[in-house]
Amino acid sequence: MSLVVAGLQHPGRSGDVEANLAVLDGAARDARARGADLLITPEMFVTGYNIGDRVAALADPGLVERVSRIAAGAGIAIVAGLPEPLATGGVANTAVFVDEHGLEVTRYRKTHLFADLDRALFVAGDVLPKPVEHHGVRISLLICYDVEFPETVRAAARAGADLVIVPTAQMEPFAFIAETLIPVRAWENQVYLAYVNRSGEEGDLRYVGRSSIAGPSGRVLDAVPADQPEGLVLATVDPAVVAQARQQNPYLDDLRPDLY
Amino acid sequence: MSLVVAGLQHPGRSGDVEANLAVLDGAARDARARGADLLITPEMFVTGYNIGDRVAALADPGLVERVSRIAAGAGIAIVAGLPEPLATGGVANTAVFVDEHGLEVTRYRKTHLFADLDRALFVAGDVLPKPVEHHGVRISLLICYDVEFPETVRAAARAGADLVIVPTAQMEPFAFIAETLIPVRAWENQVYLAYVNRSGEEGDLRYVGRSSIAGPSGRVLDAVPADQPEGLVLATVDPAVVAQARQQNPYLDDLRPDLY
Repeated sequence: MSLVVAGLQHPGRSGDVEANLAVLDGAARDARARGADLLITPEMFVTGYNIGDRVAALADPGLVERVSRIAAGAGIAIVAGLPEPLATGGVANTAVFVDEHGLEVTRYRKTHLFADLDRALFVAGDVLPKPVEHHGVRISLLICYDVEFPETVRAAARAGADLVIVPTAQMEPFAFIAETLIPVRAWENQVYLAYVNRSGEEGDLRYVGRSSIAGPSGRVLDAVPADQPEGLVLATVDPAVVAQARQQNPYLDDLRPDLY
Repeated sequence: MSLVVAGLQHPGRSGDVEANLAVLDGAARDARARGADLLITPEMFVTGYNIGDRVAALADPGLVERVSRIAAGAGIAIVAGLPEPLATGGVANTAVFVDEHGLEVTRYRKTHLFADLDRALFVAGDVLPKPVEHHGVRISLLICYDVEFPETVRAAARAGADLVIVPTAQMEPFAFIAETLIPVRAWENQVYLAYVNRSGEEGDLRYVGRSSIAGPSGRVLDAVPADQPEGLVLATVDPAVVAQARQQNPYLDDLRPDLY
């Protein structure tokens, strides 16, 4: 039992939903043709991320349905970043996970908002996700800044996740996160970690790209080179490899929660 | 207010206390001459680490006094790794911290024992240390495997530590810990982290060296190159730099302990 996971690094077009959905549709078909079972977009890919007040108008509940149709059309599961209007008011920075038939599996609202950039626009989620099982692989979602807190990936691993998916919009000067912190998060929890970033410039932000998929022994299985703006990272996720890594490096067994 | 911290990377002589104390005495004088206020040894430096059953006979309560005399003689504080006989029986893998007058400041017993190697010889400590203040710098101690758990450094940072000192005996194939995980631990908590390793071979272990001191923005301030067996790492620890790093990257403020 294993899953081929792909991540689309792309600058998108800031504020242009139709353009971004067209890119997503093309990437979904391309990823499927390359054998992928699941495609991940960067954070807020459907609308753009650094779009200021426009986020409220673009936070259409119909966006999820649009993503679902692309997934069903290409026959590939998708985790897509988009703004979600909340019944209680405001907008969440959300990742929605739909399967290859277009059915929603789960959604996750970013719990750790980054600086004024996030706080001005979004309402924070108030719960970490429980892993969902998808074709035998237990998957948990985080968004961007969330993964920088070791507590979040630890919680996913202790809840049984094999794979943690992280749409992100990581900008300069934080290449250290993409290049160094991400493999450590994978290693210290023995999970696969897919970190899928935007690229290019958006307003005053310059994204660092460097999307990657790290394996449960901390090795980077695939990555977009630093100087390459667009790309698809691709790796096979195998729960048996996770189990083996956890035997070799039993951090989860050796934890002493009574001490912390 | 700042403190110059030095770490001695050295293979020591396995099981030979007199030889190791002579090395420590020389290094203490050398470090002091180079401006250091505090010298750190690798894990279990005083006796050797991979010494099997000999640890029980070598775990003499008088070892601390020997280290104290070296500290007072050289006029430098010392954090030294040694075996500590416990009143309740058994031996702890301990780091003792004595000041430049030879007075004991604190001691810490390794809480996360590594594999059968540790478990066959040592009784685990059952408490993480509270930071101690030394000339205006708040210092916390961990030993080797402890630091690989993000929870331990987080606990130190949340308790106010500016500097986390980690004597270690890190062997192949774990160079990833020394090179990649250590800077991430410093970064994600905005603390200084001094990781002081053994080198050379001891029994069936081949230590990876690569001692380093990382700053609170994740930058490696000094390190022993991978191909160099012995060396002294040296860096200035300044609580004002910690405070500034925590303003720039407010992970500790942005934590959501209710979620984990």
